[in-house]
Amino acid sequence: MSTRIGIMGYGNLGKGVELAIRQNDDMELVGVFTRRDPSTVTICTEGVPVMNAAALEDGSAPAIDVLILCGGSATDLPEMTPKYAALYNVIDSFDTHAKIPDHFAAVDAAAKAAGTTALISAGWDPGLFSLNRLFGNCFLPEGSDYTFWGKGISQGHSDAIRRIEGVADAKQYTIPIDSALEAVRSGENPELTTREKHTRECFVVLEEGADAAKVAEEIVTMPNYFDAYDTTVHFISQEELDAEHSAMPHGGFVLRSGKTAGDKTCIIEYSLKLDSNPEFTASVLVAYARAIARLNAEGSIGAKSVFDIAPAYLSPFDGDYLRAHML
Amino acid sequence: MSTRIGIMGYGNLGKGVELAIRQNDDMELVGVFTRRDPSTVTICTEGVPVMNAAALEDGSAPAIDVLILCGGSATDLPEMTPKYAALYNVIDSFDTHAKIPDHFAAVDAAAKAAGTTALISAGWDPGLFSLNRLFGNCFLPEGSDYTFWGKGISQGHSDAIRRIEGVADAKQYTIPIDSALEAVRSGENPELTTREKHTRECFVVLEEGADAAKVAEEIVTMPNYFDAYDTTVHFISQEELDAEHSAMPHGGFVLRSGKTAGDKTCIIEYSLKLDSNPEFTASVLVAYARAIARLNAEGSIGAKSVFDIAPAYLSPFDGDYLRAHML
Repeated sequence: MSTRIGIMGYGNLGKGVELAIRQNDDMELVGVFTRRDPSTVTICTEGVPVMNAAALEDGSAPAIDVLILCGGSATDLPEMTPKYAALYNVIDSFDTHAKIPDHFAAVDAAAKAAGTTALISAGWDPGLFSLNRLFGNCFLPEGSDYTFWGKGISQGHSDAIRRIEGVADAKQYTIPIDSALEAVRSGENPELTTREKHTRECFVVLEEGADAAKVAEEIVTMPNYFDAYDTTVHFISQEELDAEHSAMPHGGFVLRSGKTAGDKTCIIEYSLKLDSNPEFTASVLVAYARAIARLNAEGSIGAKSVFDIAPAYLSPFDGDYLRAHML
Repeated sequence: MSTRIGIMGYGNLGKGVELAIRQNDDMELVGVFTRRDPSTVTICTEGVPVMNAAALEDGSAPAIDVLILCGGSATDLPEMTPKYAALYNVIDSFDTHAKIPDHFAAVDAAAKAAGTTALISAGWDPGLFSLNRLFGNCFLPEGSDYTFWGKGISQGHSDAIRRIEGVADAKQYTIPIDSALEAVRSGENPELTTREKHTRECFVVLEEGADAAKVAEEIVTMPNYFDAYDTTVHFISQEELDAEHSAMPHGGFVLRSGKTAGDKTCIIEYSLKLDSNPEFTASVLVAYARAIARLNAEGSIGAKSVFDIAPAYLSPFDGDYLRAHML
């Protein structure tokens, strides 16, 4: 029997989940749920209902094995994940690192009371990058961790630029600095400042009559977002922004550089190069949905992170197949 | 309380395990066991007994939580792992990929009958590379797998050269071809022949009076080992071999290149650069020993592979710490 998936929230990530389900024959999309007027939401899959989010609470939603929560971390998920964990097995991609302990506790309480299983902070960072930080620390207990992001679009930094007076639209790329990456790969264990690890490149559309020099100055001096980086600002037209910068690539690198007790240098490197950040994140969520459905069927309830999921649970294949073909 | 580790077999890997335990405060080496005369074996750790392997069966060994089996895959482990799984929780690094299903079945039967927990095929390949093959296939169901090994010394190929008449000693390096790696990284999904993926470089010491041209010809035409590769042979002195080629570096690359259902290219790359193959492999075994001790304490018995181990079990830190610091 297929694992029946519901999608709560139909933005880029929700749409990515819808697409990812098509690549997994054992998964079935049974409903898309939205806080918007469902009649205004058009999905890609024929025959699947789009329903108001209220349907998840009033008993009118179809049977769901795992509900994938595709809301934002700032305000949606802190409320949404505990709420729906009280009703369904759920997965989210909560990515506010500093608030993960509180979020985990709230979701765990709700899931345990309801007998559901809830995975928080799945995706690639947090998620796959977290796994590689953990593995690196376990296999090389004496060493240094390095995470580089990009080249990719940072939604938060793009939003910050858009809030500046005179800016009509903007996209911001986070770019890892090659020489820093190479220094880490060489085993030098460099101590790298913020400025030495990444640059930021901004493509900005001005409103009519806006002062370009003033906008540029506001960007490069913006505390927390840009002041600690070398930042380049390009002013372009809305047409060029739409044509050249509407894709959502991302990726990055996690490295662990350490020494064995015999003083031998070992370097573990994990990297992602993603032409679509939301579509890849969605693919990760769908694989973890398979794991969550299985864990719940086994009676393993409460909140989980990717650290708690044995890798075999992610695969549609059984242990015999995996050992014969992938071990 | 510490996890009490026994080491069965004291070659490069066994010594690596002894060293790796020093980097893990929650692990304690309680004994080294050997089929040699124990009085001929000197270990690095004071106060730890070196005992004949018979002690593992006659009740004279100290209490052991996990016995790490550091034998060879060709003849030692197929016999050793089921035998000791009937007595102890065990870990091996069995690496004959084609025989993994049989080995797993034999170990599983022994461990289940005895109530022990046994991890087979841990290390980096099989092991960490296997995990990355599995993850890649789960997150990008439509795609291609690539594994490159090296630059590193292949024990099997070095041994094959040493068996040639006229050869006194030899070391063989397996070297991935950069242009092939770059083609994979570009997302082209190339179909690569054996010759296109790796070259082989041999450093050979001749016996006095041996015919260099004949030895070189025998090497490069050796079926299975060298005939499908571009192979370079260097003749050097024993002194140079000992001075320049006695380290045991290795490593490699696992890549998954795939497309999302939205036709976006995504590439996952995992790589290791190891100045000591046995010391790093040993570090991996020690982290998995922690997991196996925990699983056995929870009543999870029988044979396991790395696919069955939730990553959190590898760490000395608890879930709260891991979520706060690594997620």
